[in-house]
Amino acid sequence: MAEQIRAIRTRQAILGAAAKIFEERGYQAATISEILSEAGVTKGALYFHFQSKEDLAFGVLNAQNQSLVVPDRAIKMQGIVDIVMLHTYRLQTDPMVRAGVRLTMDQLAQGLDRSGPFRAWAVPMREGLERAQSQGELLPQIDPAETADVIVGTYAGIQSMSQALTEYEDLVIRVSALMRHLLPSIVQSSVLTSLHLGESRGAEVYAEAVRAMEISQAREDLAS
Amino acid sequence: MAEQIRAIRTRQAILGAAAKIFEERGYQAATISEILSEAGVTKGALYFHFQSKEDLAFGVLNAQNQSLVVPDRAIKMQGIVDIVMLHTYRLQTDPMVRAGVRLTMDQLAQGLDRSGPFRAWAVPMREGLERAQSQGELLPQIDPAETADVIVGTYAGIQSMSQALTEYEDLVIRVSALMRHLLPSIVQSSVLTSLHLGESRGAEVYAEAVRAMEISQAREDLAS
Repeated sequence: MAEQIRAIRTRQAILGAAAKIFEERGYQAATISEILSEAGVTKGALYFHFQSKEDLAFGVLNAQNQSLVVPDRAIKMQGIVDIVMLHTYRLQTDPMVRAGVRLTMDQLAQGLDRSGPFRAWAVPMREGLERAQSQGELLPQIDPAETADVIVGTYAGIQSMSQALTEYEDLVIRVSALMRHLLPSIVQSSVLTSLHLGESRGAEVYAEAVRAMEISQAREDLAS
Repeated sequence: MAEQIRAIRTRQAILGAAAKIFEERGYQAATISEILSEAGVTKGALYFHFQSKEDLAFGVLNAQNQSLVVPDRAIKMQGIVDIVMLHTYRLQTDPMVRAGVRLTMDQLAQGLDRSGPFRAWAVPMREGLERAQSQGELLPQIDPAETADVIVGTYAGIQSMSQALTEYEDLVIRVSALMRHLLPSIVQSSVLTSLHLGESRGAEVYAEAVRAMEISQAREDLAS
């Protein structure tokens, strides 16, 4: 058990160091020895967890999708809004999420397949839109797969613009503008007026998701 | 005159080489000597036109905004759609435009202020939206500056997603989906039904803009 915890901690330390180096130096310029010295672990420890620089980048890319889940909502479209708001909050507060997004948006990271995160983000969006559609929340012309891609792609650009112009300081305002421009073309107006889109929504959903994760972990610990 | 033409050609050759190297190697990894050997010009010629790597990158970034202008439209919102469609067409066909967009989207190009192109794209968008607003084309809640930023930011993300997933093969389809998701929240429905949004629109506007540029150059030549 102690050994397992140590291994998880080492893996986290390596990923944190990789996120920092990728963000500072870029994927192509970053080297494994820089990540090693930042993480303060042995070469053997690093190669036990990650086989290559590419492998480390995938670790960082995947970290942003893990662990935090938005609870089920009566209005399914609120669930989709909340995924966006939660990610916005994490982008402003979590260096690992920020590094993952930067790697995804780095068009110059050759040799690294950046399509994964775009696809990974589009899947829960499409599923959520399908549930919203089956509840009659969506306008009749909506194709959930197409709209999921529009949400993911537009969000990617809005965050990139916010990063370039203000280092994410105006991200919440820009994401709010994005939602107000997209949602009226997607949902029925009766649904539109019920959605929570306020500036504090991201922080609220984050607190809720962390609580839910802690409860589920406590249950697992009791069961084992 | 011959000397002037030679200088313009040399500048173009250097910018073309810089675009290629930045796209292949990334801003940080690219070196001036690589650009020199790709361009096949002397060091003196390069430093006559560009003083640094940063200067070269700005040259590439600016090249995408130059020369091609969308003619004035009776429906001002069509002018905005046409700017987007023209850029989409050029992104698929012009390596210089592609390199400029890649540099803009490269979050890892440290030392390079990437905010310029975002701002440069937002200005004509805002001006066009203000004209559309004064003609009564827009919905009452629209703030032209905010909506201009939404159009620029979302377009940036959609092109990035298309590049990551299909190397721009599905760009026209994705941009069409973007327009269908944004425009109903921006313009009056009576305007919406009059807009040309077809897949061939980009190529048509490009042909029109090239013709307009040729006529204006012929006039300048006659006048001088």
